[in-house]
Amino acid sequence: MRRGGFSGRRWQATLAAILSLSAALSLSGCVVAVGNTSPASPSPVAPNPKLAGMQYLYGSAEADAISRQAWTALVAYVGDRVKRPVADSVVLAKGATLEAPRFLSCAGKRPAAVFDVDETVLLNLGFEQDDLTGRADRAFPERWRAWEASDGQAVLPTPGAAAALADLRAMGVAVIFNTNRDSADGAARALDAAGLGPAVHGDTLFVRPDGGTGDDKDTRRWRIAERYCVVAMGGDQLGDFSGLFDRPGGVAERRARADGPRIAALWGRGWFVFPNPVYGKALKGAVDDIFPADRRWHPTGEQ
Amino acid sequence: MRRGGFSGRRWQATLAAILSLSAALSLSGCVVAVGNTSPASPSPVAPNPKLAGMQYLYGSAEADAISRQAWTALVAYVGDRVKRPVADSVVLAKGATLEAPRFLSCAGKRPAAVFDVDETVLLNLGFEQDDLTGRADRAFPERWRAWEASDGQAVLPTPGAAAALADLRAMGVAVIFNTNRDSADGAARALDAAGLGPAVHGDTLFVRPDGGTGDDKDTRRWRIAERYCVVAMGGDQLGDFSGLFDRPGGVAERRARADGPRIAALWGRGWFVFPNPVYGKALKGAVDDIFPADRRWHPTGEQ
Repeated sequence: MRRGGFSGRRWQATLAAILSLSAALSLSGCVVAVGNTSPASPSPVAPNPKLAGMQYLYGSAEADAISRQAWTALVAYVGDRVKRPVADSVVLAKGATLEAPRFLSCAGKRPAAVFDVDETVLLNLGFEQDDLTGRADRAFPERWRAWEASDGQAVLPTPGAAAALADLRAMGVAVIFNTNRDSADGAARALDAAGLGPAVHGDTLFVRPDGGTGDDKDTRRWRIAERYCVVAMGGDQLGDFSGLFDRPGGVAERRARADGPRIAALWGRGWFVFPNPVYGKALKGAVDDIFPADRRWHPTGEQ
Repeated sequence: MRRGGFSGRRWQATLAAILSLSAALSLSGCVVAVGNTSPASPSPVAPNPKLAGMQYLYGSAEADAISRQAWTALVAYVGDRVKRPVADSVVLAKGATLEAPRFLSCAGKRPAAVFDVDETVLLNLGFEQDDLTGRADRAFPERWRAWEASDGQAVLPTPGAAAALADLRAMGVAVIFNTNRDSADGAARALDAAGLGPAVHGDTLFVRPDGGTGDDKDTRRWRIAERYCVVAMGGDQLGDFSGLFDRPGGVAERRARADGPRIAALWGRGWFVFPNPVYGKALKGAVDDIFPADRRWHPTGEQ
């Protein structure tokens, strides 16, 4: 469905007008009345570039429905795997590639499902609202550390998550969290607050200091898959499934990795993705990176 | 997974500085050197508020995977309905409510799946790239009319759509499009260009002039459901499933409609949603509408 609404170009045109007027002032040596910039008149408010993503993820019925739909598919898939076990887990083995994937074996292991935490099983409402409205003079790392150390109450489960995790546990499937948070205590508090626990550090909860370099979760995934038959994984970033997606490469190359002939069939069949247009590796690229060169159009008479 | 990156607040602080400087200039009667605003120095570029959504939907591996996952679930669900038919369609009957849903009957009808077009089965790459970079002096309606009238080549199917629609047709399920485009010829051209056709106006393609008021698709849905047993619907906006979602109400109320006890179970079980954080009714609300009042947090020492 299409419709008009807020135009990004309109805002950019407004800004361009402000800037060229400022430039003209500095060149002319004359001060003239500057529309919309006196303290008494309303200033044009820059739309926060994160607002639209937050409207979508935290406010919309559409993102709510996509989250529920993903949880429904995940529970159905795991239910089928419990009834009809297969030999392989859905964790790529060390040395595997996206072109020639090999998966770790399930032989003799208890079934588990492995999840990222933030914007996968819980929504960080308190942190994100503060990010939009809070003081601009604190950098992300300090702010996020404070959030991890908080009481964890200002969260909600992603729509459908609480019932889905309960269903998995009722099937005898271990629910395990693999997060890049630094604080295991903080993660467990937030998971409990969202009604998603228990999460026990070193058993069903693994955090960044437990292994791996940077954001890479493979080391912890392999550790989990030594003990468990991982029948499903869920995340909002493709690094929640394999570090191979985050190897160097451009925007189009990364998207092509998700489309690969041996990978595409895994989405919704063992690997389950939750929407997050607010932050992360999905929000990269200039216009020429995002839009294929052979799919350009402009109205007649425009370039 | 979390990480820092672009701060919306940093941009807003930059803009505030520009504006207060302009204000100071106009009050002081003096022209001073204005940082970053002379034509020779690089201007601060306002992040287009639509860019992040476009990065996500058109560029990211994550949105690609979510689209594939939704198509996989849809084809599996329809396959099951074809093997094990049920009495009811997934189209709400006239007079039904979200609290007491009643569905139109399937008795004696051939199975069909009904889809929205834009950002559901195809990605409007040409239009959206132009929207980011094109001239700012044409309004949306004129621009969109030109796009509908274009050759339709600057599109791609949503990831997984082409194979999924082929699978549905191979099962004997009619693939029907219900779009709010005005031009049936233009819609058919774009669907063909994306490899998603055929779409025959009045048979498998219905456009805005075919009935309904404004964006409401119910009239056309009911017309389709008179002839067909609609076993699944797909859309990027909840109006693609029922006009009841778009009745008056705030952001939280609309989200609660998707969560309703009789509705929540339909997501992924007959109703399938595709991601679109670029435009539409999902992108509404001020901060206080998006974030629940009982889930607020700020670092210690801040309000």
